[in-house]
Amino acid sequence: MPAITYELQAKSGRARAGTLTTPHGTVQTPVFMPVGTQATVKACTPDQVAAEGASIILGNAYHLYLRPGHELIARAGGLHQFSNWKGSMLTDSGGFQVFSLSELRKITEAGVKFRNPIDGSSHFISPEVSMAIQNALGADIMMAFDECVPGMSSHEDALAAVDRTTRWAERCLAAHARPEEQALFGIVQGNVYPDLRARSAAALVPLDFPGYAVGGLSVGEPKDKMYPTLAATTPLLPEGKPRYLMGVGMPDDLVVGVALGVDMFDCVLPTRLARHGAFFHPDGRLNIKNLRFREDPSPLQEDCDCYTCKSGFSRRYLCHLFRAEELLANTLISLHNIRYLIRLMESMRASILAGTFPESHMSYVPEAFHDLVLAARA
Amino acid sequence: MPAITYELQAKSGRARAGTLTTPHGTVQTPVFMPVGTQATVKACTPDQVAAEGASIILGNAYHLYLRPGHELIARAGGLHQFSNWKGSMLTDSGGFQVFSLSELRKITEAGVKFRNPIDGSSHFISPEVSMAIQNALGADIMMAFDECVPGMSSHEDALAAVDRTTRWAERCLAAHARPEEQALFGIVQGNVYPDLRARSAAALVPLDFPGYAVGGLSVGEPKDKMYPTLAATTPLLPEGKPRYLMGVGMPDDLVVGVALGVDMFDCVLPTRLARHGAFFHPDGRLNIKNLRFREDPSPLQEDCDCYTCKSGFSRRYLCHLFRAEELLANTLISLHNIRYLIRLMESMRASILAGTFPESHMSYVPEAFHDLVLAARA
Repeated sequence: MPAITYELQAKSGRARAGTLTTPHGTVQTPVFMPVGTQATVKACTPDQVAAEGASIILGNAYHLYLRPGHELIARAGGLHQFSNWKGSMLTDSGGFQVFSLSELRKITEAGVKFRNPIDGSSHFISPEVSMAIQNALGADIMMAFDECVPGMSSHEDALAAVDRTTRWAERCLAAHARPEEQALFGIVQGNVYPDLRARSAAALVPLDFPGYAVGGLSVGEPKDKMYPTLAATTPLLPEGKPRYLMGVGMPDDLVVGVALGVDMFDCVLPTRLARHGAFFHPDGRLNIKNLRFREDPSPLQEDCDCYTCKSGFSRRYLCHLFRAEELLANTLISLHNIRYLIRLMESMRASILAGTFPESHMSYVPEAFHDLVLAARA
Repeated sequence: MPAITYELQAKSGRARAGTLTTPHGTVQTPVFMPVGTQATVKACTPDQVAAEGASIILGNAYHLYLRPGHELIARAGGLHQFSNWKGSMLTDSGGFQVFSLSELRKITEAGVKFRNPIDGSSHFISPEVSMAIQNALGADIMMAFDECVPGMSSHEDALAAVDRTTRWAERCLAAHARPEEQALFGIVQGNVYPDLRARSAAALVPLDFPGYAVGGLSVGEPKDKMYPTLAATTPLLPEGKPRYLMGVGMPDDLVVGVALGVDMFDCVLPTRLARHGAFFHPDGRLNIKNLRFREDPSPLQEDCDCYTCKSGFSRRYLCHLFRAEELLANTLISLHNIRYLIRLMESMRASILAGTFPESHMSYVPEAFHDLVLAARA
């Protein structure tokens, strides 16, 4: 028995509505996954996150390996029990953070040596170590340890990373100790080069992972490189398995991603924006610090059903809390931002089931990409 | 019709169980009031605070006057509507904060001139201004603007403050614009001098305030001065009105205070301790940072019914959150600490109604004060 099952329920062009079943519940796709980097979605209780409709959240192997340590979490019964999250959970491999956050890293075929920026200590993560970390964390879905090069890297660098990612993927499969309890997803790399995306997918699809991610997008390249690359990649992935676009959470990216056939997304954006006072709104991103909200009795968003908006917290109150540096502002704005993205996913899913997508959501898509999205309708 | 009513239900020695009814609900006394200095109990939603059993919270006139401004809050419909707190509410007068927090203050018979430490601007609060601020905030209970001298001041200084507090109390009564909607409490001063406490009470009781506070205790004097002073003061207050001991929230002080006939208490301690990782426990105050909690699967307190303890958050998880500087630690420890004090009050109330107080709670009282507390039983 595999750890997860995916059932494709409806298509609207290339967009898909499906149901992902994990050992911890059912996830209706397309889905947005809030990020709980250090075993918590920042400033929110698990109950608050679940109440906004989150069915699956993400944990970061890199951070949890460094603090409090994956072995401590294993002794605590795994990340679910440790963090008190009852729904489904996905962990990343640590690869992206090793490349983007650590210091003095050295990449070899064996793996990556790096220095912990917190205390200067030396560490080594390889495909095998990443699997051991993620097996210890025990999430429903874990990710292969890949090499992700910066956006707009050279073809030569991207090719080397694709082939290393393939070799590392095989080592991950061999090292994964709990395939019946945890599903391991492969990650297609290839930067913005369609030929490399094809090369990566052609190598990984025969390995029969239970799901596939598109990695190495939204890492610095412009959208007019990102979207066509994604459009060229999703058709290479198996129809009967979930597809995950990593690290993406801007509303326009979510709509384009769904239109191009992606099922799962994650991003720190809703909670990170909240810490800076920014909140999602149909009119665009607004900031609660702005003096025009100082006496505004409205909720953050008029017809929003998040805890913050429906409970009667006004913009003027949140403006005060934020300016007074009260932590409650983080919590209340985070909940709104999380709900905003989850609600966007729910409405896309409903439109796919009704056959009205992507026309129903074109207002989120910049005009320059209307043709690309509408082409996915055919 | 007065804004509040107080019904004395039972006595156990000098300890009292009663019911306070305000325009926003019913408060069972003795009661602990969490403090929401800047229109929020720090790091907690109003729903979370109410779920821990809080029926009344406190707001600080001084802070809210400076930011966001009492007139803004009045335009928002008052502090209840602004902050989304549905239960009862009390505001202090700003006096204590003007004396303890502001810079370059100058006290005259007219009032107090001071500088705002945030921006250096100049301000003036008098009895009349304090009433205007508190009428604008609209809490169920407001406090007279008094002069509070530091603990262990000279008899001469304390006497001058008592007489000024009396004259200011008369001005507060005259300036209070909404006596049918908001109850104004008088504040008995007198430092640690029983004769001055008697002088203050004798002057204020005839003014017929709907409730009386004991101010100027727990402001730097040792407990062996504080407790006897309190013991000498509460018998001077009218039996049929609520009595409030300001700024007190240590468990031992709460038990002694109740034994000596106090009905209401407030303190920032539960949330301030939480920000430093400290949590209440029957064994004494513990700190979650301590490495011995790093792998401890227990809740903060084994038989506690607070959200944090009953939902399965472990000491090891909270130790991780605190060390990782995750805000959720503040929230979860604050909720436990608030519940701890409220539950202590609930259990004292039950013992008073059962006639077993204070014997039931002597374990909270330092031995040096057992005689004092047991004398209050007679």
